[in-house]
Amino acid sequence: MTSPDAGRSVVVDDIGLLVTNEPALGDGPLGVRRNVALVIVDGDVISIEPAGAIADRRIDAGGRCVIPGFVDSHTHLVFAGDRGDEFAARMAGAPYRAGGIRTTVDATRGASDDELRTLTSARRAEAARAGITTVEIKSGYGLTASHEARCLHVAQDFTAHTTFLGAHVVPAEFEGRTDDYVHHVCTEMLAAAAPHARWIDAFCEVGAFDVDQCRAVLQAGMARGLGGRLHANQLGHGPGVQLAVELGCASADHCTYLDDDDIDALASSDTVATFLPAADFSTRQPYPDARRVLEAGATIAIATNCNPGSSYTTSMAFCIALAVRDMRMTIEEAIQAATLGGAAALRRPDLGRLAPGARADLVLLDAPSYAHLVYRPGVPLVHRTLAGGVVIGGLDHVGH
Amino acid sequence: MTSPDAGRSVVVDDIGLLVTNEPALGDGPLGVRRNVALVIVDGDVISIEPAGAIADRRIDAGGRCVIPGFVDSHTHLVFAGDRGDEFAARMAGAPYRAGGIRTTVDATRGASDDELRTLTSARRAEAARAGITTVEIKSGYGLTASHEARCLHVAQDFTAHTTFLGAHVVPAEFEGRTDDYVHHVCTEMLAAAAPHARWIDAFCEVGAFDVDQCRAVLQAGMARGLGGRLHANQLGHGPGVQLAVELGCASADHCTYLDDDDIDALASSDTVATFLPAADFSTRQPYPDARRVLEAGATIAIATNCNPGSSYTTSMAFCIALAVRDMRMTIEEAIQAATLGGAAALRRPDLGRLAPGARADLVLLDAPSYAHLVYRPGVPLVHRTLAGGVVIGGLDHVGH
Repeated sequence: MTSPDAGRSVVVDDIGLLVTNEPALGDGPLGVRRNVALVIVDGDVISIEPAGAIADRRIDAGGRCVIPGFVDSHTHLVFAGDRGDEFAARMAGAPYRAGGIRTTVDATRGASDDELRTLTSARRAEAARAGITTVEIKSGYGLTASHEARCLHVAQDFTAHTTFLGAHVVPAEFEGRTDDYVHHVCTEMLAAAAPHARWIDAFCEVGAFDVDQCRAVLQAGMARGLGGRLHANQLGHGPGVQLAVELGCASADHCTYLDDDDIDALASSDTVATFLPAADFSTRQPYPDARRVLEAGATIAIATNCNPGSSYTTSMAFCIALAVRDMRMTIEEAIQAATLGGAAALRRPDLGRLAPGARADLVLLDAPSYAHLVYRPGVPLVHRTLAGGVVIGGLDHVGH
Repeated sequence: MTSPDAGRSVVVDDIGLLVTNEPALGDGPLGVRRNVALVIVDGDVISIEPAGAIADRRIDAGGRCVIPGFVDSHTHLVFAGDRGDEFAARMAGAPYRAGGIRTTVDATRGASDDELRTLTSARRAEAARAGITTVEIKSGYGLTASHEARCLHVAQDFTAHTTFLGAHVVPAEFEGRTDDYVHHVCTEMLAAAAPHARWIDAFCEVGAFDVDQCRAVLQAGMARGLGGRLHANQLGHGPGVQLAVELGCASADHCTYLDDDDIDALASSDTVATFLPAADFSTRQPYPDARRVLEAGATIAIATNCNPGSSYTTSMAFCIALAVRDMRMTIEEAIQAATLGGAAALRRPDLGRLAPGARADLVLLDAPSYAHLVYRPGVPLVHRTLAGGVVIGGLDHVGH
């Protein structure tokens, strides 16, 4: 996206409360400042000034609370079809199974490039309206070399953080031949996908892929220069988290079932523990014990996991509210996890904070404080979302 | 609100999926119809026609799902001030106590009439954007004769369903003299409030009012022609539900802690069990066992309980999602409870359904099915809200 303000300064003025995520720049763990202006040049924050600062262009925050844009480090936005019926059946008592992914694979393979691009664009726009300024997007609903490459190619229109997830589930045509499929993922499929991907991922779970299969996939991807991430410990305890740490993955995602060794491994590594509470909500799983992970000193991210099977939401605010209510994170910890934590999980030190040198990705909230994201659950509070200082989404009120 | 279409017909056309809430009119428990049009005259539904029906004015639903407007039978919308700090402290471990209400009483007494009206209007508009077409509004933050009357007078601008809740909490000036305060509520305060109220309510709870005090308040109100409703069994088991049934209240609200006798009493009465799951969420209470109440045959409503202390949300969709995920209601049961159930709790047979003779209060969802209200938690799906066939709220998308 080219900024209309190249070389000119932009000021977001009359910010009632600014979350910098830099404790040295303000009060409390979020480095909060009051009644300030944020000055932006070429899409980057260059300074925080008292309200009333002068620039070439002014955006009036109207006293609102401004927070860093959400960094959503785990999504599956490229897909076709709907699994509302499967969801309703699950809410009526049916268990969640990884195999439901195949329903989406069929629909995605059957969609045209244009359809996939239109669907993904609509979801990315919805995420922008929810305050998400950076999104990671996985493949994983193509599951052939050409379909995986195609999905990643579509995803590249929306993010630099594309992730090859050929090892999402074994497709029907490889039923009973998981090792053959893994070989295919590591060779032909990877060769087609890698040019369009920044990351590689696998689903380490009973019903999906075991630890050796996941290790083979991640190592093959890393040998081609992709960074590692892993779906780990979602539906039960397993070896995924340990594998993610062993391989130096940027993130281990889900982390719903963790034992002491997993937590120690995360805490003594750079692997981010990424919680996906909306998936636990939508599959009626228990919530992870975030307090133990935080107290051990691991870095935590929160992401939406937007996908049609287990978590069809773009609402990071909803995820934050669950993290506070049901995972007992403080409001500040949860907001930091959804911004700075997501940035850490994508290895992006320029994101997730609003301080000189950082990207001017931010959200204007219709609220006096960030606490309202949890205090007012379900209420759409995102007034405007800016990426690099440019409005990418928002909601206007209709009617009286 | 005067309709701009008096005497003329309006058609909501190209409805992809219509929830009538009349099983005889369509499929399943919600009486669902596909590809239809709703014809409205003078604010009432007069017929359901095939898509393409002709009328004086046409509203294009664009294939969307249309459901009855939410009937929010329990709110406290008239107040000043913010308790975000108390909420954050609670999320960090402090327990919820009824006494926090006094904070809002101080702020509300200190606000001008205009301030109260502006704040209430903004909240009513937010509720309309969330799909709420009818709202009950309680007093209870004035707690003097003149302040209670003032709050009800403000509320009357927004609903016919105003509720006198002088017995919300004992105000500071009556500390230690609860019986004196109850006498005041039943006499002077009721005399001032009753001309502005349709209902009377009390908070039956340890820390608020006991069963005899609540009985005195409700009977005094009923003697003046007000209908009864009661805050019951919120923070622990108590005699509230039995009292509500004994007095023939329209609704017993909260019902978080119920024993078998309570459930039997509800099931054999016309008293609606009104669940307020967002309050259980925001106070970290357990959720009520809705399945037992449903299976016993009681009528259930779901309401937001929008208030600054224990449930600061206007999102009925959020309440429905909690009811399904955490109270194990089916999606259909939860949607019915938030529409028809709310109407029953307000004794309004003309609301909560979309059938000939009913009020044309409805919501156009940005979704192919009502199931998306739960399948897509946190995502604002209300495109437009219509009351009596007239748009009263909605959200337009900004940006790409």
